[in-house]
Amino acid sequence: MAKPKKTPRPKAQTPKGFRDYFGSEVSQRAEMLQTIAGVYHQYGFDALESSAVETVEALGKFLPDVDRPNEGVFAWQEADEDDNGDWLALRYDLTAPLARVYAQHRNDLPTPYRRYAMGPVWRNEKPGPGRFRQFYQCDADTVGTASPAADAEICAMLSDTLEKVGIPRGDYLVRVNNRKVLNGVLETMGLNDDSQRDAVLRTIDKFDKVGESGVRELLGKGRLDASGAYIDGVGLSDDQAGPVLAFLTSKGAGAATTLANLRAAIGASTIGAEGVQELETIADLLNAQGYGPDRIEIDPSVVRGLGYYTGPVFEAELTFEILDEKGRKRQFGSVAGGGRYDDLVKRFTGQSVPATGVSIGVDRLLAALHAKGRMDGTTQGPVVVTVMDRDRMADYQAMVGELRRAGIRAEVYLGNPKNFGNQLKYADKRGSPVAIIEGGDEKTQGVVQIKDLILGAKIAENATLEEWKARPSQFEVPRADLVSKVREILDGQG
Amino acid sequence: MAKPKKTPRPKAQTPKGFRDYFGSEVSQRAEMLQTIAGVYHQYGFDALESSAVETVEALGKFLPDVDRPNEGVFAWQEADEDDNGDWLALRYDLTAPLARVYAQHRNDLPTPYRRYAMGPVWRNEKPGPGRFRQFYQCDADTVGTASPAADAEICAMLSDTLEKVGIPRGDYLVRVNNRKVLNGVLETMGLNDDSQRDAVLRTIDKFDKVGESGVRELLGKGRLDASGAYIDGVGLSDDQAGPVLAFLTSKGAGAATTLANLRAAIGASTIGAEGVQELETIADLLNAQGYGPDRIEIDPSVVRGLGYYTGPVFEAELTFEILDEKGRKRQFGSVAGGGRYDDLVKRFTGQSVPATGVSIGVDRLLAALHAKGRMDGTTQGPVVVTVMDRDRMADYQAMVGELRRAGIRAEVYLGNPKNFGNQLKYADKRGSPVAIIEGGDEKTQGVVQIKDLILGAKIAENATLEEWKARPSQFEVPRADLVSKVREILDGQG
Repeated sequence: MAKPKKTPRPKAQTPKGFRDYFGSEVSQRAEMLQTIAGVYHQYGFDALESSAVETVEALGKFLPDVDRPNEGVFAWQEADEDDNGDWLALRYDLTAPLARVYAQHRNDLPTPYRRYAMGPVWRNEKPGPGRFRQFYQCDADTVGTASPAADAEICAMLSDTLEKVGIPRGDYLVRVNNRKVLNGVLETMGLNDDSQRDAVLRTIDKFDKVGESGVRELLGKGRLDASGAYIDGVGLSDDQAGPVLAFLTSKGAGAATTLANLRAAIGASTIGAEGVQELETIADLLNAQGYGPDRIEIDPSVVRGLGYYTGPVFEAELTFEILDEKGRKRQFGSVAGGGRYDDLVKRFTGQSVPATGVSIGVDRLLAALHAKGRMDGTTQGPVVVTVMDRDRMADYQAMVGELRRAGIRAEVYLGNPKNFGNQLKYADKRGSPVAIIEGGDEKTQGVVQIKDLILGAKIAENATLEEWKARPSQFEVPRADLVSKVREILDGQG
Repeated sequence: MAKPKKTPRPKAQTPKGFRDYFGSEVSQRAEMLQTIAGVYHQYGFDALESSAVETVEALGKFLPDVDRPNEGVFAWQEADEDDNGDWLALRYDLTAPLARVYAQHRNDLPTPYRRYAMGPVWRNEKPGPGRFRQFYQCDADTVGTASPAADAEICAMLSDTLEKVGIPRGDYLVRVNNRKVLNGVLETMGLNDDSQRDAVLRTIDKFDKVGESGVRELLGKGRLDASGAYIDGVGLSDDQAGPVLAFLTSKGAGAATTLANLRAAIGASTIGAEGVQELETIADLLNAQGYGPDRIEIDPSVVRGLGYYTGPVFEAELTFEILDEKGRKRQFGSVAGGGRYDDLVKRFTGQSVPATGVSIGVDRLLAALHAKGRMDGTTQGPVVVTVMDRDRMADYQAMVGELRRAGIRAEVYLGNPKNFGNQLKYADKRGSPVAIIEGGDEKTQGVVQIKDLILGAKIAENATLEEWKARPSQFEVPRADLVSKVREILDGQG
């Protein structure tokens, strides 16, 4: 007789590029999000939570650095009789949904509309080490005003937020640039050919990596890269390339010098002059509020995102060094970015709606605090009441009840109580600060044993109950003193 | 010449069955989740956040009341060269992912593993009024113990949680039943035919709607339903149907009577006796901890979810009446449910892992608090500093800076300041408690105008600045007194 075919067991695995978060990873992130929301709220921003799922049509093809629609997102088609259902997708950021929300609800929303949003976003990208396909963003945006005061406000709020979550002044810098200035530079160079213009933009994006001389070569004849391959250049003359290099290297000792250098780089361009004027307004407003160059500065070498935005762009960088996985020192780098994007709502309504905002990479910020030792990786486990006599479960439950009412995290051991060693191993795995024991003898005498597990952390795995009881970190107290003694031990552990 | 074809504008709409949440809807839910997490944490439960996306294989076909695999979920296939990529899906609850997480990480997790999780889940169902395809769940589960003490703990914690979020004792009831008792009843009835057994289970599920006499008819010959249609019965004799009816109606004045009735209903069934014993243990433990029948009771008429679970089942019901959309009184009903499900992890590992837990419907609980008037639907807007002179933006920014440092939510108006009426309309739309005005005259005299907007709520839409200033709810104070006067007004508004 043929054996019935068994269904194979499913694999217990997250899909590639996804992961689970446990305990303090979850609660520390929740706490950070709450802190950030507090600052945003204080600045007058209102919470918005849009759905994780949007139509592909509404999301559009606005994912930065991606040319094809739908590329980079998780998308599927709605079931429908004619196989003609809408295409839906998981949001890839919080900005595209904001544009949809504002267009949909604009008659009910105030103008300007200041909103914050926080939550996971999804990218259908090749996962890599430390690169996940689901991660958190925490955004604040102001929709419906072209005023540079809105951009300045975002920068000030970003600075306040970083300090509030535990990055002290001096350990971060918010850097501000302006896409319009770059447009002015391109105009001044007289680049009429779109493909040449795009080539120049792509070259500028490499400034972080190859520096001034590298960009000079790439704008001209080309360059031998580190691997020995020859990269063709854009083919500009030195004269033509001049304004771009002047732009990228225009940062002076103070805002005034930088702005003067930028004015020189844009020549007679109107759009460029508008950009420089915006930067000046932003710098003046921030200065008047006491946000000096130790916190926020104009820096034309900020190129990240220049292609995506339409006006001012911001980037928050952590300036301290950490050790990478190979033990080498390196700058921690960027934890937040944003800027002005005046065309996103227009897709829906046909009317231009100016908007500006910032997105904080919460997971990176948490990693930074861990790297600096400013955040503990563990949270304290509960007080564990062990079970010496399984018929007296109600007694043990009464103990945890008393402890909880006193504000102390506590639980009864609910595994098989037969092997006492397992109960201790469990308390150890839980990171418990204190264990409680009440066997038959203790019950008769009206006492409990209270074990300070932090003091006695190195319990041998196979210690017997008797050995364990003999340790000096264990106290016998009257049952009535249970809560006060536990409180005393916890306070002593700090 | 042919006009170039325009791309049609995308529709600014959420996909069908999804919605956006604004302002206090978001912050009140966040606050409630935080409160619930606080209780769970106090009980020793650890946070877990699994990814929103799982493989379809890992999710399995465990969505209650759905027979076909993948039905009811949003799923898609991973792109891959051979069109052979994994099928992925959005999680439909937080229990199926927990089973996967526990199977995947069981060597690193403590046993028993108490965990809580909160977040959105997605159902690919036909949306209806008030029925959304994305909603929040907030779960606590204990994996790895078969002890009824774990079930009792979940019930006690559920009771504590409801009181903590603002449902007072007397306004809710946690009801407990046991699937094993029902299995015992079916055994006692001698139902050998699987299809007849399923028919009985389906009939029991209708007890809520049709009551005792309805179930009696449906177990027997059949029944004329409200629409006049005749529903065929299961075809049992009155004798055979007896135990089911005895089970469903076994609730007595106290736990002791109920348990005695259940013992009679199960006859000689071993599994049934086990179920009754579990209920008795749960009732005893809860009683010893002071959770009386005013909070938690054994109630065999709880049938929801009996098919899904393998042992004790729980349901939290709000017992007060609210008015429905048509103004009729009705019970608010269920806000949480759960039970013991011992077979979910086994799918992955082949080994049975007992587990029990509860899921709170956070959105329903929020709706209940709103319905009872225990939660305000609005949050206070920020203090709005109006812009009388756009060249003095820095002065206005300084004001909001001072207010924020004093812990007061505040913002500068960032729309077009030309029309002062628009600034007032904006403050109104924002729900602002206070507006600040500093025109040229005020600046010269070193004063500011502070308007109590709650007092002066009914401002005519077209009031002139002069009319508006003349109202008694407006105060002129020295610029230096700005913060203290605003604080005084806010305190007065309560």
